[in-house]
This record gives sequence, structure tokens and C-alpha cells, in this order.
Amino acid sequence: MRIAVDAMGGDSGPGAAVQGSAAAVLAWPDLSIDLFGPRTLLEAELESLPRHLAAAGSHLSVHHAPSAIRQDQRPSDVLRRGGDTSMAHMLGHLAAGRAVAGVSAGNTGALMALSRRELGMVGGIPRPAISTAIPTRGDGRCYLLDLGANVDVSADRLIDFARMGDVMARHVDGLVSPRVALLNVGSEGTKGSASVREADAWLAGTTSLNYCGFVEGNGIFAGMADVVVCDGFVGNAVLKASEGLTHMLIERVQATFDAHWGSRLVGLLARPALRRLKSELDPVRYNGASLLGLDGIVIKSHGGADATGFSYAVLRAANEVSRDLPSRLARELGSRHDRSQQEQR
Amino acid sequence: MRIAVDAMGGDSGPGAAVQGSAAAVLAWPDLSIDLFGPRTLLEAELESLPRHLAAAGSHLSVHHAPSAIRQDQRPSDVLRRGGDTSMAHMLGHLAAGRAVAGVSAGNTGALMALSRRELGMVGGIPRPAISTAIPTRGDGRCYLLDLGANVDVSADRLIDFARMGDVMARHVDGLVSPRVALLNVGSEGTKGSASVREADAWLAGTTSLNYCGFVEGNGIFAGMADVVVCDGFVGNAVLKASEGLTHMLIERVQATFDAHWGSRLVGLLARPALRRLKSELDPVRYNGASLLGLDGIVIKSHGGADATGFSYAVLRAANEVSRDLPSRLARELGSRHDRSQQEQR
Repeated sequence: MRIAVDAMGGDSGPGAAVQGSAAAVLAWPDLSIDLFGPRTLLEAELESLPRHLAAAGSHLSVHHAPSAIRQDQRPSDVLRRGGDTSMAHMLGHLAAGRAVAGVSAGNTGALMALSRRELGMVGGIPRPAISTAIPTRGDGRCYLLDLGANVDVSADRLIDFARMGDVMARHVDGLVSPRVALLNVGSEGTKGSASVREADAWLAGTTSLNYCGFVEGNGIFAGMADVVVCDGFVGNAVLKASEGLTHMLIERVQATFDAHWGSRLVGLLARPALRRLKSELDPVRYNGASLLGLDGIVIKSHGGADATGFSYAVLRAANEVSRDLPSRLARELGSRHDRSQQEQR
Repeated sequence: MRIAVDAMGGDSGPGAAVQGSAAAVLAWPDLSIDLFGPRTLLEAELESLPRHLAAAGSHLSVHHAPSAIRQDQRPSDVLRRGGDTSMAHMLGHLAAGRAVAGVSAGNTGALMALSRRELGMVGGIPRPAISTAIPTRGDGRCYLLDLGANVDVSADRLIDFARMGDVMARHVDGLVSPRVALLNVGSEGTKGSASVREADAWLAGTTSLNYCGFVEGNGIFAGMADVVVCDGFVGNAVLKASEGLTHMLIERVQATFDAHWGSRLVGLLARPALRRLKSELDPVRYNGASLLGLDGIVIKSHGGADATGFSYAVLRAANEVSRDLPSRLARELGSRHDRSQQEQR
């Protein structure tokens, strides 16, 4: 299984992408990785791989791309002038069938626009949606979508998100009948935005997925659904606020143990437990957001991800390849569109 | 200072409201509280006040209201038929000038609709916005608004929220020049919903407040602004998701200390530190959401608040009374509306 990696997207140079790719190969030995970026830079990274990753080196190959997309570059500009960038080369490689999935930690808007142009969409979906799995109580997880690709969405798009989340939870996670919910400001049907209420009315009438109505924000982490659907603006705000809150809480846990001499002593003893906790809560554990609806597999890694975080994104890609996600989406969304039209007639 | 309290709104009967009112009196000895609800129920609560709160009893008086508003009752129904409820009696009392602020833990939509009818609005604001202070890194705090009262809002409403948050942070918290930000899905002006981009353009051109541009969700808890403005759907989702995430993280901190015998021993020693931490993170500490834009002071307490949580809501009301918030809002929003029209000409 060959995966194409844009090595130039991360916030702190190609190190995390190269080492993360190596770590993914060690975890999934069938993988081969094509790394995209300036040749000399990537070759230097490969030569200085840490000893514990060196064994993966033979599975990594360098593909030269002279430039990189900036974080503040507009998608329209990237579409016109981004041809020589590591992201465009990586996606071209994928579109040409030379790899089965792509991973980038770069500019999200650019990745969406280029992926859409290079790979096309399935099942009548107009634009990709972004989704990631977030941790819930009792060691569960929940797909939240959209996470920022689509703002001011119509009810039709919310219904698309529900369908795509359902397909992903069934085929990638193996759930038989994932509980799908709409995020709302209250649990009664009279509340919420117009598009949410309209989507609710449609979803409540369909038998093709296990729709369980509205959840409020606290329901996401409470594990009340396997898929939670919302406008991209809302999902982005919730995801990023959760990231910020987690950082603040971890800081406060540490400050609590540093406050008094008695606590400092306990803090010293508690250090291993806290380290475990930190890794459990770490957002990179859940790193790797899927661009759903593309006729291909593209995973967006967090720009600030370290090598471990990046490796999760690569493994997420491998996982979606092994479950054949795009053709599942194409088949099931296509049939949904037909059925929905039948239902309406 | 006399505050009217709807004692029947909380999730678990009038106990939290009555005891919370008593606790607030002990913390702010000038307070007198008028409690609204079924007389026999409230008198029984007063007679069974815990010993440490008994001294406050003489500052609490019971005002009979036979019924209560249900959580699932629609605002339109409450406006027509809610006259005999504890909430309506409490607000009528406030509107008649017999108290200077009102507090309720009841149905938010009903509280908004009844407050608006009984008290009216100031400064051209069409509907109240809901705002609360949330904790940020480094022991700071940040007002987030709107929290669910207004969904699908226009740019004009976002500008109103910014102005009201600014007035509150200056006059209630004593900040000289509060940093006001708009919540968005990215920090560039090309991203976000149409209303957010339009509000940004207006705010960037005004000199009447310290507008510092966009923040993303993680910026809220990072303390990047003193006031963060967003659509009510977004604010509600962020606030409730944060509540759910905090509960999950506290559970995981405890589970970490319960997992192994070594950790269990440390957990025993760490218990006082964890108890402190829990109280620091507890959402009830920040309980008490302001209904901004009313010609009067109404505070919404969390439905699940205990006596301590409810006392914070009462003290929030007392604090806003002492800073004369509604007349500050009336004066400054009125002048903003004039100025904005001048700027546009």
C-alpha cells in the first residue's frame, strides 16, 4: 500500500512528516511512503532519522517538489499558481494512481480545493466535508463533521454529512448501526437554525440510517452518538475550543500539584500517572481528519502535529484504504440520492 | 438591595435556589431576597435551612406563585398562559420596581420572552443576548456571547454583541479597554460566514472599541480576548461542549489515579489537591449568565446548579446592579447607533 505524503505542510518543517511516516511504516509494515518536497531537504531528514526509526528508511522515497504552499495563501491563488508545490505534486501523484491515499499537514483550504480539482467528488457531494474522531466518555469515540470546510450550510448539506458519517462509522469502525445526531441548541424540534430544523425533519422521516435526533454540545463528549453533524463553522469552533480547553486543564492539573510543598511531593509521585493522562488527552492521539466526499482518500494532519501525531494521520489514511471508503461512499450516497428523490415524489 | 428570585426553575426543586439565596446574603449582607414559588413549599425550605445558612433567613421572604414553567414549554405558550408561574410573578415584581434584579434557573426561552415583555429593551437592541464569563489560561476570564438566544444572526447583531460585551467588561469588570474579538474559523478575513465577515469589516473601521480581529476556538481559553462574539448557535455549542469535555477530563484524572495500586496510593495522597482542582474547574463557579440588552437585570442560573452555583448567579445580579449596567448599556448603545449612522453617511 503506497501513500503519498506532502512533507512541507507542518508548522515546523518536514521533520514531523518524515519521522511520522517512518513511525507509521513500523506500525503497518505493508506501507510504502512517497514523500513530496525539496529533494535536498527531505534527503537530509531521511539521513538523520532517529535510530529507532531507521529501519523504516527503505520504505520511504523522495519525490522532488521545489516549493510549498503558505498557511495564509488563498485557495484561489493556489489553484492558479500552486502547481510546483509539494501539496500539488502529492495530489497529482495520487490522481495518477501512483498512490492510494494522500496526507498533508498544510493549508486546509488549499488542500480541499486542490483535492477536489485533482480527484473529483463522489455521490453528488459538491465539496468535501472534514471529519475527525473525538474521544468520548467511557473510552468511546465520535465522528464530528463538518469541521470548517463548509459554512452557512443548507439542510441538504447537513443530510450529506449525516450520510457520510454513517458510512464511515459502519465501514471504517465496523459499527452495525451508528447513532447519528444533529447538533442543536436544545433538544426540542422548535429550537435551532432553519437548516438544522429542516434537516431534522428529513432525517426523522428516513429509515436508511439510525437517526437519534438532536444532541447539545455536552452530548458530544458524553458519548450520546457515534456521528454528530453540524455546520462547519460550529464544528470548527467546538473542536478548536476543546483543544484550547484541554491545554488549559492540563496546565491547571500541573499547577495544582505545584502549588504547595505537600502537593509538590505528591506531584513528584504522581508524575508517571500525569504523563499517562496527558497522552490520553492529547489531541494528536485523535489526529488525522478525513476529507469526505472526494473520489480518493486525503487526510489532513494537524499543522502542529509532532511525529507521533503525523503517524496517526498516515495510519488513518491506511485504515480508510483498507476499508475502501471512497467506493463505499460512492455506492451508498448515490443510492441515497436516488431514494431521496423517490421519497419526495 | 432587593433581588427577586424564581425559586422553581432548577432541575431538582427549590432547595438550590433557597439555599443559594441564603448563601448570597451571607456573602453580600446588604441583600434582601424575594423568593417566588408555592408558599408552603418555600416556607418548608426556609424552615429546614442548614445551620450555617440560618442567619440569612431574616433576609429572605416568600411571595406566593402557584405554578411553575416546565422546561419543555414553548415561549409562545408561556407568554399566553404563564401568568401564574413563579417566573412571571418574579419578573412582574421586578417590572413594578419592587426589586432591582431577577434570577431564575428556569426555561431559558421563556425567561427571555417574559423578560423582554415585562422589562423592555434598551439602545435599539431587538432581543436579549446571553453572556457568561468563562475561565481562561492564567486565571483570566472572557465574556462569550451570544450563548443561544439568537441564531442565524446578521452582522448588525454581532456588532450589538460586541458593543454590549465591551460595556459589560468595562463597567462590571473595570477593564479600561477590553479586547473584543469575533469568533471565526480562521484568522484571515477571507474565511468565515457572510455575517462574520461583514461584522469584521464594520468593527475594523470603528474607533469606539478595542477590536482585535478574529480568534479561533482555541483563542477563547487562551485568553486572547476579554470579549468573544459569535452567533448564539455557535456560542451555545462551544459552551456546552466545554462543559461536557470538563466532566470527561475530570473523570479521566480520577480514573488515572484509580488504575494501578501504585497510582491508587498516590491518588489517596493527591485527593485534597484533586478536590481543589475540581472546584477550580467546576462550571458552577462561573454560573450566572446575563440577559443583556434588557431594561433591567436578569440573570439565568444553570438549571443543574447546586446552592453554591445558584449563589454565584445571585451575586452576579448584585454586582451588575451595583455597576448600574442597564443604564450604561442604554447610554452607550444609544450613542453607538447614532454614531454608526453618522459613519455611514
